[in-house]
Amino acid sequence: MKVEVCFSPALFPCFENPEAVAVIVDILRASSAIVTAFENGAEKIIPVGTLDEAREYKAKGYVVAAERDGLIQDFADFGNSPFNFTPEAVQGRQIVYSTTNGTQAIRLASSCHAVAIGAYLNFTALCKWLTDSKRDVIILCAAWKNKFSLEDSVFAGAIVHHLLETGNFTTDCDSAKASLDLYLIARNDLMAYIDKAAQRHRLRKNKLDDVIGYCHTFDLARTVPVLENDYLTAYRD
Amino acid sequence: MKVEVCFSPALFPCFENPEAVAVIVDILRASSAIVTAFENGAEKIIPVGTLDEAREYKAKGYVVAAERDGLIQDFADFGNSPFNFTPEAVQGRQIVYSTTNGTQAIRLASSCHAVAIGAYLNFTALCKWLTDSKRDVIILCAAWKNKFSLEDSVFAGAIVHHLLETGNFTTDCDSAKASLDLYLIARNDLMAYIDKAAQRHRLRKNKLDDVIGYCHTFDLARTVPVLENDYLTAYRD
Repeated sequence: MKVEVCFSPALFPCFENPEAVAVIVDILRASSAIVTAFENGAEKIIPVGTLDEAREYKAKGYVVAAERDGLIQDFADFGNSPFNFTPEAVQGRQIVYSTTNGTQAIRLASSCHAVAIGAYLNFTALCKWLTDSKRDVIILCAAWKNKFSLEDSVFAGAIVHHLLETGNFTTDCDSAKASLDLYLIARNDLMAYIDKAAQRHRLRKNKLDDVIGYCHTFDLARTVPVLENDYLTAYRD
Repeated sequence: MKVEVCFSPALFPCFENPEAVAVIVDILRASSAIVTAFENGAEKIIPVGTLDEAREYKAKGYVVAAERDGLIQDFADFGNSPFNFTPEAVQGRQIVYSTTNGTQAIRLASSCHAVAIGAYLNFTALCKWLTDSKRDVIILCAAWKNKFSLEDSVFAGAIVHHLLETGNFTTDCDSAKASLDLYLIARNDLMAYIDKAAQRHRLRKNKLDDVIGYCHTFDLARTVPVLENDYLTAYRD
């Protein structure tokens, strides 16, 4: 099987492959938050692209998480911090979720055979799901308003590293090779490396950078969020 | 001043800045070929996007260089190898040039204040032109059919490295930081690093890889090709 990395939703048309499985990566913070929500017992997450859609769901009584540019929207129950998705807030509930970059990427990838959400938090479970799928893999970085993002690409490199090591995957994708090399530079001290990422500075400016360490911690969760029709649900091995 | 790197023409809308100067990078092989042509005395290069345009110019008696997917087009005088652009072939002449990725990128960047063509071959002259411009710099990688290309990104990293070292430039662009790190891995043995690039394999398959070493040689040329209206001309300090 092949593994490829797509650095931006705007480049996804170059990678489209209905037979492949896609992994959506938005490390800071949407994919880390979604994994946390399911690990804490959320039943279902409905990704919506626009704030208008999110507002409509809120009016119907749903729990709504919605942020733009890292900031919680006034009508929403909470924003994009994984720390919002506590067991008290999410257990057994359906959550509507709209973020700047993450939810658009999820919708885009829905042309693939299957879609999962990937984060350091569920790394081992995710890699097992990918290996078990026995299909080509496209890692779609949610990026920042379509611009390449360092923290997503480094994590993509971690997945590429693992999949190539299994011996079941190959790659002829330059983005996958670049991601792998960035991961190999970063892996001894992920936090130090990610300190230079633009998103790190955006979060710090808004005092939202308390989650960076958590979002770069391997394997706190065993859940793989997967897309089923138009919502996400939890896959556990 | 700021320096940014755009990994693909498809991402250029995220970077557009009419006050900035743009550098087009298509190391294998368009930007290396264009630099070589001017160094060998070409008077003017007219970049055209489509093969139909190139054919029309040919009918009017122009010298035409045209390739697609690395292969010379049957109506053209020559293709995309820098070795085609000898003094005998180009001196004092106007050349019409259409390539898979390079010429489209040039047209796209024409919204910027000024556009130059960058290659290892003219590295020092290019960096001086950029520094002298005293403007923000956008490095536009021509990429391969909009997919990230390793050899263009590594070269972008070489420019970023140089500009940051001058102390006159800063960057908050994740692509620039990633390019720089890839260049720092690659620089001790560029040829060995580039061996894994997809374009390296495409060229080898078509027996067109004789140019790789030449295209990764610093400072064989002192010319900076710059866009003037809708054609390229030679700038020499």
